[in-house]
Amino acid sequence: MTPTWLEAPVHPVDEAAAAAAQARQARLTKPPGSLGELEAVAVRLAALQGRERPAAERVRMVVFAADHGVAASGVSAFPQAVTVQMVRNFAAGGAAISVLARALGAELEVVDVGTLEPPGELPGLVSARVGPGTANFQHQDAMTPAQLGAALEAGRAAVERAAVADCQLFIGGEMGIANTSAAAAVACALLAEDPSVLAGPGTGLDTAGVGRKVTVLREALARHGDLAAAPLEALRCFGGFELAALAGAFLACAQRGIPVLVDGFIAGVAALVVQRLRPETTPWLLFGHVSAEPGHRRVLEALGGRPLLDLGMRLGEGTGAAVAVPLLRLACALHSGMATFAEAGIAGG
Amino acid sequence: MTPTWLEAPVHPVDEAAAAAAQARQARLTKPPGSLGELEAVAVRLAALQGRERPAAERVRMVVFAADHGVAASGVSAFPQAVTVQMVRNFAAGGAAISVLARALGAELEVVDVGTLEPPGELPGLVSARVGPGTANFQHQDAMTPAQLGAALEAGRAAVERAAVADCQLFIGGEMGIANTSAAAAVACALLAEDPSVLAGPGTGLDTAGVGRKVTVLREALARHGDLAAAPLEALRCFGGFELAALAGAFLACAQRGIPVLVDGFIAGVAALVVQRLRPETTPWLLFGHVSAEPGHRRVLEALGGRPLLDLGMRLGEGTGAAVAVPLLRLACALHSGMATFAEAGIAGG
Repeated sequence: MTPTWLEAPVHPVDEAAAAAAQARQARLTKPPGSLGELEAVAVRLAALQGRERPAAERVRMVVFAADHGVAASGVSAFPQAVTVQMVRNFAAGGAAISVLARALGAELEVVDVGTLEPPGELPGLVSARVGPGTANFQHQDAMTPAQLGAALEAGRAAVERAAVADCQLFIGGEMGIANTSAAAAVACALLAEDPSVLAGPGTGLDTAGVGRKVTVLREALARHGDLAAAPLEALRCFGGFELAALAGAFLACAQRGIPVLVDGFIAGVAALVVQRLRPETTPWLLFGHVSAEPGHRRVLEALGGRPLLDLGMRLGEGTGAAVAVPLLRLACALHSGMATFAEAGIAGG
Repeated sequence: MTPTWLEAPVHPVDEAAAAAAQARQARLTKPPGSLGELEAVAVRLAALQGRERPAAERVRMVVFAADHGVAASGVSAFPQAVTVQMVRNFAAGGAAISVLARALGAELEVVDVGTLEPPGELPGLVSARVGPGTANFQHQDAMTPAQLGAALEAGRAAVERAAVADCQLFIGGEMGIANTSAAAAVACALLAEDPSVLAGPGTGLDTAGVGRKVTVLREALARHGDLAAAPLEALRCFGGFELAALAGAFLACAQRGIPVLVDGFIAGVAALVVQRLRPETTPWLLFGHVSAEPGHRRVLEALGGRPLLDLGMRLGEGTGAAVAVPLLRLACALHSGMATFAEAGIAGG
């Protein structure tokens, strides 16, 4: 039942390129270690891209959009119609991720994995509809096994398109009203945590709203046994199509050898599913930021991820990862462009 | 004796522009507050630049370089000759700040405020030599009053040149072997802290080296009375020419109405001098990052500054501020470029 491509090998990391990059860092005209995380990320990208001097110029951003049956349980501050309205906003260039893609010279693709109403044809929109949103996981499983397979495949297909474009860095974003509830439920299942730890305000619930969300999640989680060791089953029971597409995309990136810059809470939960399913994907997952959505710190801790940014962002769409792209680019520019002590004729190197 | 320009009024902040920017943020297609610090920084820049839609495209970086007599007391991991060698590296384009300036399309100017040996004529180098380095503050005052005035003036002159280029954001960097010792001494004087709190490894001292640095600073501080309320006198007794030039530049920016993005420990201490001298400069000082140099957190706390980045950088040269420039640019791009709820026809705004 599980798609066979999920079991394909993960691309190996190039330790020789990492060692060469580390040695280069030690020769650059600065005190050793003084560029902090920028040194670490350059060496990490060298290992992933298999070359001493890595680059993050060709960035592909893919936003997966889908609706969630659990929205009917009153777990979001915004009405469900906003999902498809935002898909139109992405295509029209007015959303935050659209602006960031333009500013960064990155390619933006929007994939409809299953909004309630089809958005119609739009520039830059790929239709990969699994259904008109998931079922309400408060009362039943969010997806059928076939739907899960199709959603994972939508992610893989997006990565195939990115690979054709010779992408050096992949960012997966998402849009789907109520998807912090879906992500929190999946994370609770994988981490064996109570929803009070992982459910937060999302787009802006008040305290009473968060309480309602916690109740819905507890009820849903209680209908299932322990899913901590069954990441795909947790994804099927609670996840959204866009969450599954992100997981499929991240795994496909690791298989294809494309570094992923993971966004916030929802993308982080998709990364957690992938890491639990295939721990050898870990080196391929870099983390752009820590979100203000409170559950994200717990998810990052489980992932062992060190985020580059902590700016109190909580928008999703891939925006937290997008904002971190210049840090990767500057890290690569410094790594490639600085003089060595020998080149500059400087003492003490 | 104090130069009269230090007393010129600080440029007022435009509260109407801030309010207009804040209102615009509330209309953009995102949950309110979901861009976190990027929203705050866009509104802050609007207030400083006096327009609803601010920009950080024209960035001027000025690196002030000078030598320190206290280097003779064995307080640095690198030999003093490195200061002038690094000035040549800045001019040749091989230093970290040179690479960052190119990558960011920013103008880089290097000002020699007093290296031990003159570096000679170099492209992009401005000579404003106050002397062949400061005196060793372990035994005597680092500068004469006339030298302090000249170094402050070197900073003001750099800002005048930046203003002519219609600069939208100013970054001040520094180079000077032993200058974390000078900065730590000034900060200890202003904050009435023991050197053990503010002296750190700098370019890479070991534990014994830091201990020696603390001893030198204690001895120097003991030769003076309480300087907590005398920021210019603390700067004269312990500071470097580049530290004084940074202070002069930051004050001149606030007077001229140019926002400053403050770098790490040494630039932070220069900002502290300015803030203690003229508290109304506070809105003009933005903070790029928190340095790995341990004293920087204490300095930021005293300044009330919230840094954008925490990447474990400790290089100086202005690099920590430079790396934060894309965050300001993306904040401005989002602020100007996103659609409003009304424009996008989206519910719930």
